[in-house]
Parts: sequence; structure tokens; C-alpha cells
Amino acid sequence: MAPSFEPFFAAVRQQLGPESVDTTPETVARYGANLLPGGDLPPSGVVFPASTEEVQVVVRLANTHGVPLWPTSTGENRGLGFKSPVRPGQVVVDLGRRMNRIVELDEMLAYAVVEPGVTYAQMYEELGRRGHKLMMDTTSGPPDGGILGNTLDKGAGYTPYFDHFGMSCGYEVVLPTGELLRTSDGALPGSKTQHLSKYGYGPFLDGLFVQSNLGIVTRMGVWLMPRPPVIRAFFFTFPEDEDLAEIIELARPLKMNNVVPTLIKVTSDVYAFGTEETYPSEKTAGKTPLPPEVRKELREKHGLGAWLVSGAFYGPSEEVVQPLIERMKAHFMKSGKARYISHAEAEKSRVLKIHIATFSGQPTADELGLLRWRPGGGATWFLPATPMVGKVANEHQAMSRRILAEHGFEFAVEYVCGPRMSRALHIIPFNRQDPEERQRMSRCFRALSQAYADVGITVARAPLDMQEEAMARLQGLPDVLSRLKKALDPQGILAPGKYGIK
Amino acid sequence: MAPSFEPFFAAVRQQLGPESVDTTPETVARYGANLLPGGDLPPSGVVFPASTEEVQVVVRLANTHGVPLWPTSTGENRGLGFKSPVRPGQVVVDLGRRMNRIVELDEMLAYAVVEPGVTYAQMYEELGRRGHKLMMDTTSGPPDGGILGNTLDKGAGYTPYFDHFGMSCGYEVVLPTGELLRTSDGALPGSKTQHLSKYGYGPFLDGLFVQSNLGIVTRMGVWLMPRPPVIRAFFFTFPEDEDLAEIIELARPLKMNNVVPTLIKVTSDVYAFGTEETYPSEKTAGKTPLPPEVRKELREKHGLGAWLVSGAFYGPSEEVVQPLIERMKAHFMKSGKARYISHAEAEKSRVLKIHIATFSGQPTADELGLLRWRPGGGATWFLPATPMVGKVANEHQAMSRRILAEHGFEFAVEYVCGPRMSRALHIIPFNRQDPEERQRMSRCFRALSQAYADVGITVARAPLDMQEEAMARLQGLPDVLSRLKKALDPQGILAPGKYGIK
Repeated sequence: MAPSFEPFFAAVRQQLGPESVDTTPETVARYGANLLPGGDLPPSGVVFPASTEEVQVVVRLANTHGVPLWPTSTGENRGLGFKSPVRPGQVVVDLGRRMNRIVELDEMLAYAVVEPGVTYAQMYEELGRRGHKLMMDTTSGPPDGGILGNTLDKGAGYTPYFDHFGMSCGYEVVLPTGELLRTSDGALPGSKTQHLSKYGYGPFLDGLFVQSNLGIVTRMGVWLMPRPPVIRAFFFTFPEDEDLAEIIELARPLKMNNVVPTLIKVTSDVYAFGTEETYPSEKTAGKTPLPPEVRKELREKHGLGAWLVSGAFYGPSEEVVQPLIERMKAHFMKSGKARYISHAEAEKSRVLKIHIATFSGQPTADELGLLRWRPGGGATWFLPATPMVGKVANEHQAMSRRILAEHGFEFAVEYVCGPRMSRALHIIPFNRQDPEERQRMSRCFRALSQAYADVGITVARAPLDMQEEAMARLQGLPDVLSRLKKALDPQGILAPGKYGIK
Repeated sequence: MAPSFEPFFAAVRQQLGPESVDTTPETVARYGANLLPGGDLPPSGVVFPASTEEVQVVVRLANTHGVPLWPTSTGENRGLGFKSPVRPGQVVVDLGRRMNRIVELDEMLAYAVVEPGVTYAQMYEELGRRGHKLMMDTTSGPPDGGILGNTLDKGAGYTPYFDHFGMSCGYEVVLPTGELLRTSDGALPGSKTQHLSKYGYGPFLDGLFVQSNLGIVTRMGVWLMPRPPVIRAFFFTFPEDEDLAEIIELARPLKMNNVVPTLIKVTSDVYAFGTEETYPSEKTAGKTPLPPEVRKELREKHGLGAWLVSGAFYGPSEEVVQPLIERMKAHFMKSGKARYISHAEAEKSRVLKIHIATFSGQPTADELGLLRWRPGGGATWFLPATPMVGKVANEHQAMSRRILAEHGFEFAVEYVCGPRMSRALHIIPFNRQDPEERQRMSRCFRALSQAYADVGITVARAPLDMQEEAMARLQGLPDVLSRLKKALDPQGILAPGKYGIK
């Protein structure tokens, strides 16, 4: 059925009020804008439901009029697509604008229930208003990013609650056919444990709604931590690119034995100083990537090495935490290569303070500085996994460095280490105003994706313009997802094409 | 389509060999036997595939002949149904008999890949053979229970890896139509991170296959822990039933702040001494439940109170762990009611040793003693959640005590406490040979289920004979599951009725 946009918008306006629809050219352009090489993706218009019931109305009208919807929460994910739909013309359902309440905050059992528009900054402020007894896990992305949207895209942070999907509990979902589903124990009318007991009775369905077009999550429970009285980060620099292998071997037992409660970040020099610097074209005659001597110069300017290792301890007092820091010094400095930077010293550096913030549940906009590394406002993220094996990490590093350099881009990567794998955050800023550089970026992304797939590594998330390609590399899964899609969304109105699900 | 059992069995015999089918009356009776009040549920026969490919053959033949299948791994779950199918006549697919290999054991990245027949005892033995460098989480159920089957029924243990579904990673699944699906990163051909990176790309589908009839899991990754050099349990007894509220309030901050790495068990007196005692009919003139004075007598015989609180610390040495134990003594004994029992003392008691084993990744058969509390070999489990709020826990306790007593059964409950909720394991042994007691047990179970549902509490798992009723109490979920079932199993050959999914 061909979509009937105008009757759809008219019906939404009629049922939800004139302020619930915006199809002006400026709005359409703003929602279509993104930072990816694939180009802008303007929607047909934007609707702004104010409640779960209104989302149900929008979904039912979309079925009536055959109109494809693109739900977004706050749409602040710069490296993966911003507010743009995966295909131009899809109607953006902006959930965040009018559904942005912290519905519940239980201080005894340490959880909150949030609507899609609740941001990290907003939650931080609310927790502060209540005396910071509780702490949330936050990303290193924009403070205006949404907690619900980040969770549903499998976003992650850096504290013990880093696994945002794992630390969410109990969803309210509007299905593509308009019915309401409450997951986990919430399926029981009057449930008292919807946000306490994660897996419910029968199959555990929450996973169906992450990186998905099988439902619109309108409310979510999120677990919070008691704020530790003392949080102390530790930092080590390592001088050479090849030190990554040794760092990974040193980090693995710390995470495997749960010695360090936070994830351990292993941040490359450009990722670190790029938050404060822009590409020094004047020193390189415009040539990219950075020549080794300029890279070294910038590194030294910020007191960095090739790698910055960081993590943090939590404890009741300075006295309890200090011996743990000393233990880390002994552990990392036995390599003979590491240089220690203390928490106090790091607090004086804008580059290092970012990490303290992310280990402390404090939103920070400073890491976004990395997106200004190149002029022209382009950025994309490449997010493969790397097993926590030093040799493998160095092979992956060499592969990424080679492919990025061949295409004239910088290796700006942070390995975020757990016990068994690290997530290798490749942040790739590029000049989106330069058509040649933009095309080169697309080629580079495809070369990276293919090279990693060839050695058995898939990505965990993908930018809008690469989602279908990433899914096409997988076996079995696309077919199963198609069957599920047909079962739950027979008319295919919800975000067709998202994450390659058709 | 009416099932054609004989042609199905003939085809399986022909394709997989004569030893792959057993329809003898003894086998059918043995697989139909269980401990539940609902009665035995004999299958039409049993098939024994030897590989994933053979499971695919069985599934395809089941589609051809319209034969309903009941996959089971080791079928050792006594309180929930043993090897019986949910409906009589379903053909048991005994995966455990011939598919029982530890396919992989990675000591560096601490995971194993197991087939359905791998038991806790088998894994413990293999880890021991390799010097116990690694530790698994185990249940307090039979050592011959299967790791995969327990995980798929949302079973749990007591160590930091207690959440068996959460600690599994990467499934190989035979779909009801016979195709193969590898979940998590395993969907990428040649994946190197299938058992390292849990959520994969796109929707996270593992949850579809727990408590489910949407696929047959033939292989699973399971995460293991480094074995801590020193494991020391602590125990406290509390004298009165009503002390539960105070215990819960004392346990919550310990789990919320991650002070104690294990879950905290709060075990009722009968649950504890019932592992060693049988019902003293001679002292009560056959009357049930236990009169207070006999209950007190047995409690004192075993050095117990109304409640036994237990947990454990892990550490590099005795010296590191001892101050933590001292801290627990200060914490629990400030109530003025608790009595401390040391690890060393507990090791001398068969009743207490069970808990040390479960905190140490050691399978033990001793808790099964509780199933001999009543004669006649009946047992069922009732498994609601209880929020970690003392007042609510006492309300739940009072409700359970009242309903159990009204039906003449014992309150034998262990509250297994995490930060936000505890799982209240009600183990209810009954005389299954006595038709009146058996019917009374069914009525009691229904009364418990209804009373908990009325106060907003659903169960996490249900015995075979109560699965449909538990699902019928939920809203939205049954309908969504039906749609998913039709999408993945159009002929409805896989365990129709399991967990109420039709």
C-alpha cells in the first residue's frame, strides 16, 4: 500500500492537536541532518506524541495510512545518525520532546522509571537535587542524550553499571499494531516487581526491542547505584603503539578477577588530545593523517603517550582506596614503560577529566570536542569487538591503522575493556563539506567492516547508512528477524530497514 | 494435521539408526514420571539425537509427520517436571544422552561451550582435572543437572555468576522449521567473539529461547570465574519468624553496595534441617504441619534458629578475608538477636556445608534430602519474587505460612537475596502416593499463586502442571508469544503448551 502522508498528518492533527505535527521545511531539514558520509535523510514530517496513548494513536493511524514511522527518543547520537530516519521519507516520531518525565525514582531499591525524553543531564540533576545518594551510569556522549534511547541502541558506559541493556528492567512497549506490552514481571496486572525482576515469566522479550523496529518503548526501568563516598581514578601512559598488547594482558586479570570495578579504558593519543585540538593543517600542508612528528608533538603537549590507560576505584574513604591505587601502580609499572598520573593531577587536565567524569556518573560534553578534529562536521563510529588477548588486539590495531591511513584518516580509538572483550570505539571525524573526503570516508568504513568481518569480527552497533550492510554479513539472523517482523508488524510501518530488518 | 507417530519413529530409526528411538513401555513410563501433583505425563516415545544435524533431522521429520516434540537436556529438575513433557504424548527429544561434550574450554578468557548433556558434576570434574583454576556457578540441585537446561529454564546459583542466563553467551539453535541460528556475534560466519560478546548485532534474541518452545538450543557458551584462592562463608541464625523483616533490611545494603560478592541466603528452619530430617509423624500423630514445639526441637537439634543467614567472601588470603567477616559480625549482630557460626564450625554440619558448597561452585546432592521430608516422593516448587523491603518480605512470609498451614504443608522457604529482590524458593514436598494429599497440594499451589498474583507478584518459573495457568494471569504477553510462535513454528511441532505458549 502506498503511503498517504497528507491524510495521515491530517488525522494526527485532528486527534492529537495541531502542535503534534510539524512538516515545515526547516523542521524536515533539521531532522534529516546528520554527520554521516551517507548524506542527510529528511523525513516527511515529525509528530510529537505526549503520552503512551498518543503513541498508540499514531501507530494505528500509520497502519491505516500505510505510513512508515521512525521513532526517536532524543536523537543525540552524533556518530550513528542523530535524528534522521534510516530511509528518507519516514515520519519521525519524536518521543523525547513531550514525553520526558522521570516517572518514578525509588531511592530505597535504587531504580528509576523514565520516559524516552529523559536525558543523562536531567537524571544527574534530579539525583543531585536529592543529595546525590544515588549514581547513574552515563556515556561519554552528549549530556542531552537520552537514557532510554541509548539503552535501546545497546549503548554503554564505564562504571559497574556500564551495560545499559543489562541494567534496564521492565519496558512498556507499543507494538507496531498499536497494542501495549509490558515486559518482565510487568505483564502481571498490578505488578510490584516490574522494575526489580528482569526476566519475567516465559521467554525474555526485552532483547526484541533493542536495535530494532519491532516496537516503540515508551517507558523503561533503569537501575541506579548507591554513590560511593570516594571515587578515585588512576591513569597510566604507555609510550608506543605496540604496547597495546601488553596493556591488554595487564588489564584482563584486573577485570576477570573484579579487582577494578569500572571498565578499563585504553585510549589512543589522538582520541585523547583530539578532544581539545583540531587537525593542525598548517603544520602538515593539509596532508592527512598526522605525520609521526606532529602526532608526537601534540601528545607531549598534553603529557600523553601512545596510550592512556584509566580506571577507578570506589570506596568508603580515601584510606581504603589508596592501597588499591598503589596496587595498580605496582601492576602497570612493572612493565617498565608506564608513567603514572594521579587523580589529583588528572583533575587539572581537560583531556583527563573526561575519564574521571565517566567513572563518576557525571555527564560531560568534553569528549564531543573530538568531532571538531576535522573541519566540515562529519563523524562516524565503527564499533568492533576485540577479544582480551594482547596479540589479537595488536593485530586489530595494525589492521585499523593501515586501513585508516590508506584512506587518509586518523586512528582515534578507545578500547573499553571488560574481562573477555573490549569494545574498540573508532571515532572517525571527517570533512563532510568536502565531497571527495566524504566519499573516501564511506570507502574507508566499508574497508574496515570487510577486513574485520574477514577475521571473524562483527560490529555491535552501526551508523544509519551502514546498518543494512552490516546485517547482510550475518547468517540465519536476517531471515529470523524477517519472520518476527512480519509477525509483529504485518504492514511494515515501523522503521523498515532499521538495523537491516525488513 | 493429526500426528503420525509410527511413521515418524520409523523415519527417525531409518535416518538416525535403531538406537536413536525408544518406545518401550518401561522407557515411556520412566520419562513420563515426575514428582508433581498433576500426575505422570508419558510421552509417545523418546528419540536420542547424537548431533545438531541429527536434531535438525528430527525436527524436519516432526514437521512432516505433525508430531509434537519435547526437547529435554538432562531432565533432572525434580521440582518442576523431571523429563516429562508438558502434555502427554509429546515425543521426548533427549538431547543429553548422546550430546554431552564440553566442546571448548578457554582458560584464558574463562568460558566453556557445552552441549545439552553436560552436567554440573561433569564440568566440576573437568575444571578439577585442569587444576581448579576456574570455577563455575552451580545450583543447589542435583549434580547431574545440566548446565544448558538449567540456564534455559532461568535457573540460578549463588555466586557472582548466579544469573545463569546473564552469564551464558552465544547459542546454537535449531529452529522449529529445522534451520540453524547462531545468536550473539555467532551469526557472523567464522565469528571469533561468539562466546565473548553477548548481545550481537540487531535485536538480542537469546531471550526468545528461555522458558520457551521457539527453538532447540544445541550448544551454548557459559562464562566461568577465576577460582578465588580463599572462599570463606559466614552464617548467622535469627530466632524468630518475624526477624525476616530485619534480616532483609540488613542484607539489602550489603548487596546494593556490593559488599558481599555472593547472593545472601535467608533459609527457613524447615528448609535447612529438612535436608537431613524426615517428617516426624510419630511425634505429631500424623498431623501436619509441624507443631511449634516439634519444630523448635528439630531446630535446636541442628543448632538453628527460625532463620539461617549465609553468604561468602572471596579473597587472595585468609588475612584479607577475615576483616570482612568481622565486619559482617558487627553488621548482623547489632540487632542483638543474631548468633554467628563460623565457616570452620559450619564445615562440620551437613546442613550448613550445603551453603559452603554452593558459594564455592561445588555441586552437592545434599539439599535434595529435603525431597524426602514427606513420604511418597512428591515435590513442587513455588518461586515468587519478593522486593528487598523488610515489611513486604514479612507480609509475603505471613501469606505463605497461612496458606501452607491451611493446606497442611510446611513453610520451607529460602529467600535468595540480591540488591532489589529476593527469589523466594518454596520447596513443597508432599506424599504423592496419597491421592488426598496430592489433590490438596494442587489446591495449595493454586491458592499460593492466586494470593501472590493478587498482591502483584508473579512467579519466575513454574512446574509443568502449572505453566499454562501462570501464563494465563499475564496480559499482552500470551498474545505476543502466540504470534512469535506462529512465525517460527507454523506447524506447532515444538513443545506446544510449554510455559503456556500456544
